[in-house]
Amino acid sequence: MKETDLAYEAMEQADEAAKARGVTSRTQQKGELNVTTVQVLNDRGAEAIGKPQGTYVTLDYGQIWQRSYEDFCRAAEEISTQLLALGLPEEPAPVLVIGLGNMDITPDSLGPRTASRIFVTRHLLEQDPALFQDWRPRSVSCIAPGVLGKTGVEAVEVVRGLMDKVRPSCLLVIDSLAARSISRLSVTLQMTDTGIRPGAGVGNTRPHFSRETLGVPVIGIGVPTVVSARTMAEDLLKRELPRQDEASAFFVTPKDIGHILEEVSKLLARGINGALHRGVDPEELERLAG
Amino acid sequence: MKETDLAYEAMEQADEAAKARGVTSRTQQKGELNVTTVQVLNDRGAEAIGKPQGTYVTLDYGQIWQRSYEDFCRAAEEISTQLLALGLPEEPAPVLVIGLGNMDITPDSLGPRTASRIFVTRHLLEQDPALFQDWRPRSVSCIAPGVLGKTGVEAVEVVRGLMDKVRPSCLLVIDSLAARSISRLSVTLQMTDTGIRPGAGVGNTRPHFSRETLGVPVIGIGVPTVVSARTMAEDLLKRELPRQDEASAFFVTPKDIGHILEEVSKLLARGINGALHRGVDPEELERLAG
Amino acid sequence: MKETDLAYEAMEQADEAAKARGVTSRTQQKGELNVTTVQVLNDRGAEAIGKPQGTYVTLDYGQIWQRSYEDFCRAAEEISTQLLALGLPEEPAPVLVIGLGNMDITPDSLGPRTASRIFVTRHLLEQDPALFQDWRPRSVSCIAPGVLGKTGVEAVEVVRGLMDKVRPSCLLVIDSLAARSISRLSVTLQMTDTGIRPGAGVGNTRPHFSRETLGVPVIGIGVPTVVSARTMAEDLLKRELPRQDEASAFFVTPKDIGHILEEVSKLLARGINGALHRGVDPEELERLAG
Amino acid sequence: MKETDLAYEAMEQADEAAKARGVTSRTQQKGELNVTTVQVLNDRGAEAIGKPQGTYVTLDYGQIWQRSYEDFCRAAEEISTQLLALGLPEEPAPVLVIGLGNMDITPDSLGPRTASRIFVTRHLLEQDPALFQDWRPRSVSCIAPGVLGKTGVEAVEVVRGLMDKVRPSCLLVIDSLAARSISRLSVTLQMTDTGIRPGAGVGNTRPHFSRETLGVPVIGIGVPTVVSARTMAEDLLKRELPRQDEASAFFVTPKDIGHILEEVSKLLARGINGALHRGVDPEELERLAG
Repeated sequence: MKETDLAYEAMEQADEAAKARGVTSRTQQKGELNVTTVQVLNDRGAEAIGKPQGTYVTLDYGQIWQRSYEDFCRAAEEISTQLLALGLPEEPAPVLVIGLGNMDITPDSLGPRTASRIFVTRHLLEQDPALFQDWRPRSVSCIAPGVLGKTGVEAVEVVRGLMDKVRPSCLLVIDSLAARSISRLSVTLQMTDTGIRPGAGVGNTRPHFSRETLGVPVIGIGVPTVVSARTMAEDLLKRELPRQDEASAFFVTPKDIGHILEEVSKLLARGINGALHRGVDPEELERLAG
Repeated sequence: MKETDLAYEAMEQADEAAKARGVTSRTQQKGELNVTTVQVLNDRGAEAIGKPQGTYVTLDYGQIWQRSYEDFCRAAEEISTQLLALGLPEEPAPVLVIGLGNMDITPDSLGPRTASRIFVTRHLLEQDPALFQDWRPRSVSCIAPGVLGKTGVEAVEVVRGLMDKVRPSCLLVIDSLAARSISRLSVTLQMTDTGIRPGAGVGNTRPHFSRETLGVPVIGIGVPTVVSARTMAEDLLKRELPRQDEASAFFVTPKDIGHILEEVSKLLARGINGALHRGVDPEELERLAG
Repeated sequence: MKETDLAYEAMEQADEAAKARGVTSRTQQKGELNVTTVQVLNDRGAEAIGKPQGTYVTLDYGQIWQRSYEDFCRAAEEISTQLLALGLPEEPAPVLVIGLGNMDITPDSLGPRTASRIFVTRHLLEQDPALFQDWRPRSVSCIAPGVLGKTGVEAVEVVRGLMDKVRPSCLLVIDSLAARSISRLSVTLQMTDTGIRPGAGVGNTRPHFSRETLGVPVIGIGVPTVVSARTMAEDLLKRELPRQDEASAFFVTPKDIGHILEEVSKLLARGINGALHRGVDPEELERLAG
Repeated sequence: MKETDLAYEAMEQADEAAKARGVTSRTQQKGELNVTTVQVLNDRGAEAIGKPQGTYVTLDYGQIWQRSYEDFCRAAEEISTQLLALGLPEEPAPVLVIGLGNMDITPDSLGPRTASRIFVTRHLLEQDPALFQDWRPRSVSCIAPGVLGKTGVEAVEVVRGLMDKVRPSCLLVIDSLAARSISRLSVTLQMTDTGIRPGAGVGNTRPHFSRETLGVPVIGIGVPTVVSARTMAEDLLKRELPRQDEASAFFVTPKDIGHILEEVSKLLARGINGALHRGVDPEELERLAG
C-alpha cells in the first residue's frame, strides 16, 4: 500500500474484491464542487484500504485561490455543511479546534495557519458573558500544540492535558496531508469522523487523534500539500523502494505553496467558523477572529 | 507606580524609606556586562516596589547584535551562570521551557522565537535512550502555549495540563517585557525566581506563572521590547493619564525590533541551552536543536 | 514645524494668516468615508505648511480591517476615483508603480507589500499580446527598489535607470508615512500629485520622487504607520527636543501593525489596480496579480 | 540533455568523446570540503555539456547548518578565495551584487536572502568619506531586482539601468539553482565566471547576466535548491516527458528548506563579504551589514 492520507486515493489502489465487502463510494457534483463520500463499513473495508472504519468526505474545490469571491463563499459553505453532517455537534456544545503541524515548514503549516483564523470565544464567555447581545456563541477554544521534534511532547498529550480544563464535546483537528498523486495537491480537502494521525501519510506510528484515544468525537480536516519523493519514485518505477531511501528526506510540492496555503487556510477557517456559529455573517466572524 | 516589568526600574521610582526596610540592590561590572541583583526581602519590600518577594537579576548586555562572537559567547555564559544561581536545578532534573507571547506581533515574539531554538530531549530519551552515548542529557520539553485572545485558554492552563504528563522539576518561562524607559529597550534582560505574569507590564491581572500557582520553582526570563505609549506620555507629562487613554493601544519600540529579537533570541537560547546541559559545546546544542 | 507627512496635519499647526494666503481645505463625507482635499496654491502656502504646491487628498477609512467586504470595496473604489482625479492618466498610458520601504521593518513595509499585489502586464503584453482577448490592459510595471542602507543606491536612482527602459507616462509611488498624532495611524491615507520623499516625515533630506526630478507626473500614496517617539515627546512637552535626542531611534506604532498592514495593503492594491484597469472586475485583477 | 544548472552534473551525462575535445575537470579535497573545477575550453565543450565556455567551481560543503562554527568559517574563506580566483577584481574596484529570485517562494529566495546580508558601502562613501578611518572599503552596492512575473521587467533590465549610475567593475550575481539529482540539493554551491541565466535550469530562455550582455565581468554564484518533478520523473523512467507534463508545476525540495537557506545564505554572504573586503574581520562586516 502506498503512502497517502486520502481515503479516496487509498481506495483507488486497493483490491477490488476486498473493497467490495466493506467500502462504498459516492460522488456528487455541486456546481463547480465535486464531493466524494467514502464509507469504510467494517474491518474488512478498513483492511482493504488501510484506513479506519468511518466516513471520509473529499471536496475537490480546484484552484480556489484563482476563483471569484462567490466561488470561495460557496466552497466554504459546503465545508460547513459537511462538518455538521459528519457529526460536529450543534450549538451550544463546546468545541476545541487543533491546528497540527509546523509553522516553520511551509507545506506543514496548514494547521497553525488555519488555527490563527478561528474565532475563539471561550475566554470572552468567561470574562464577560454580557459581551454578546444579539447572539450567544458556543464556547470555542483553539490551540496549535507544535510538533514533537520541537516540543518533546506528542501533540496528543498537549491536547489531552488541555481537555481536562476545556471539557469540549468535540475536537476539530486540522493538518496538512500527504497525497500519492501530485494532481491532488492543494486542490482538494478531506473531512472525516475518524480523526487524524499526525504525519500519518509519511509513514510514522504516532498516536491518533480519535474518539478511542481522546474520549470525544474527533473530526479531522486536512489538505494534501506534499507527495513524498519516495512515493513519487515508487509510482513511476512501479516497485517499492527501501524505507531508508535517500528520497525520504525530500518531498514534491507546488512552487507557490506559501501563497496557496495562505488562501486555502482562509477557506478552511471560513468553513469551520461557519459550522461553529451557524447563522452569523461569516465576514463578521473573521473580523471578530481579528 | 508606573508600569514596568523590570524590578530595577520599579525600584528607581519607589519611596526610599519603604525600600530601605525591604529591598536591596547590588551592581557588578563583568567586562562589558553590567549585572544588577535586586532582592525583595519581605512584604514591605514587595509593596514598596510592586513586585513579589524574590531575586531579580538584570543583565545589561548592550547592543549585542552589534558585537563580536566572543562578546556574544560571554553574555550567554553569564546567563547560564545566573540561571543556575537563581535555582535552576542541576541535571538530571527535568525542565519544561515555556515561550510566552504572540509570534504574529513582533515585539511580543521573544518567547516563541527563543522556544524554537531550545534543544528538547524528552522525546528522544523516551524513544531511543541509546541515542546518546557520550552523554545523557536531562529531559527538556518546550512549548509556546499561545495567547489568550487566540486560544481562548490562559497560557497557564495549557501548561498546567501539560505538567501532569511531563512532571518537570522546574519551569523556565520566557516572555517579552514592558519597560518604563526607552533606554532599556532590547539591551537588557531580567531573570527572576519569582516567575512571570503574562503581559504584566501592560496592566492586566492575568494569572501568574509562579511556584504558588504551579507547584514547582518557576524561573522567569525576559527582555523589555516596548514602552507603552501611555507610560511614555505619563513620564513626560509627570502626571497620570486615564486607563482608557487613546495611547493605551500604541507602544514605543525600536525601529528594527524584528532583526534585534532574532539576535536576542539566539542569545537567550544559548544561555538557556548552556544552563540546561552544562559541559556540552553550545554550538553542538544549537545544531541538535535544528 | 513638527514632523509629519500628512498635509492635513501640517495645516492644523500652521500659522493662520500665512495659510489664508495660500492653502485651501475642504472635507466631504461619503458614507462612512471622510475625504479631505488640501490644496497648496502657491509658494506662500507651501512655506506656511512646509509641503510643496499641489493637491493632497486624505481619505479616512477607519479600521477597515474590522469592516465588511462591502465597506472594503467602497473604500477601494474611492481610492481609484481619487487617483484618476489627481491626474493618473487614462488608459492606455503606461504606468510604473513603485513600492518604497523596507520589507524587514514591519511599519516600513507598506510599499513592498502593496507592490506585490499589483497586477503587472508589461511583460505579458511584450511576450504574447494575443493573451488578452476580452480586453487589452495598459502596460503596468512595478518595482520595490529597496532602501539606501541596504542597496547603497537611492531608490530614486534605481527608478530613474528603469524609466529609460519602461518609459512610463506616470509614476505611482507607495510609501509608509509618519504622522504627528497617533489617532491617525493606519486609519487614513494620503494621495497627492506632488510625489513623495522617502522617509520625509522622519526628518531626512532624501531626493524627491516628483515631476521635477523624474520628468513625468508622480502620484504619491501613503498611509501613516508611525509617530516618531521624539515627535510624540515634543507634542506632550510642548517644546522642541534636540535632533539627536535618544527618542529619535524609537517610534510609536499600533500593537498589531503587521496584521493591519496586511489588510491595508490589500485595500491600496485594490484601489490602484482598479484605477489602472477601469471596468475590469477587481477580484479578477487580484487573481491575475497572483 | 536533462535540466540542471550545475556544470558538474551536465558533464556527468554528456557524451564522452565530445567532452574529451573541450571539457576538463579536476577535484581537490580540502579538509571536509570538496572543490571541483570544470573548465569548458571551447565551443565543442560548450555544446557537449550545454553550458557556456568558462570556468565552473563546485564547492561541496555538506550540511553546513549542522556543522561547527569553525567549519562554517573555513567554508566561507574558501568561497572568498575562489571568487577572487574566478576574476573578482581586487579592491578598490566597485562591485554591484545582485540577488535574483523571489523572496515569497522559499526555494527561490536564496538571492534576496543573501543580498540582505551584504555589507554595502557606496552610499557611506558618498555621504561621508571620513566615516572610515582604519580602512577605506571599496564601493559595494546591492539590489534584489525581483522577478519578471511580479515586476513586468526583466531583472537584467533593472540592473542595466542601475549600472549607468553605479558604474561597477564587476557584477556578482546570486541565484537559486536547479539540480538534476536530489543528493546535491542545498549541500553544494557553484561559482562561475560565465554569469547566470535567471531560472536557467527550469527551461526558460531568459536573458543572461553575462559579460556579453552587460559589458563587465559577471560572476555567478548559486546553490541548487530544487529538482523539477519532471526531471526527477524523467530520470526515474529513463525517458523524456512532454514539456507541458503536469509535473512541470511541481518541484522536489528538502523538507526544511527555509531553515537551510537561512543558514546557507549566511555562508554565502560571509564568503562574498570576505572577498569584497579582504583583511577585515568577517564578523565585523556582518555587524556593519546590520
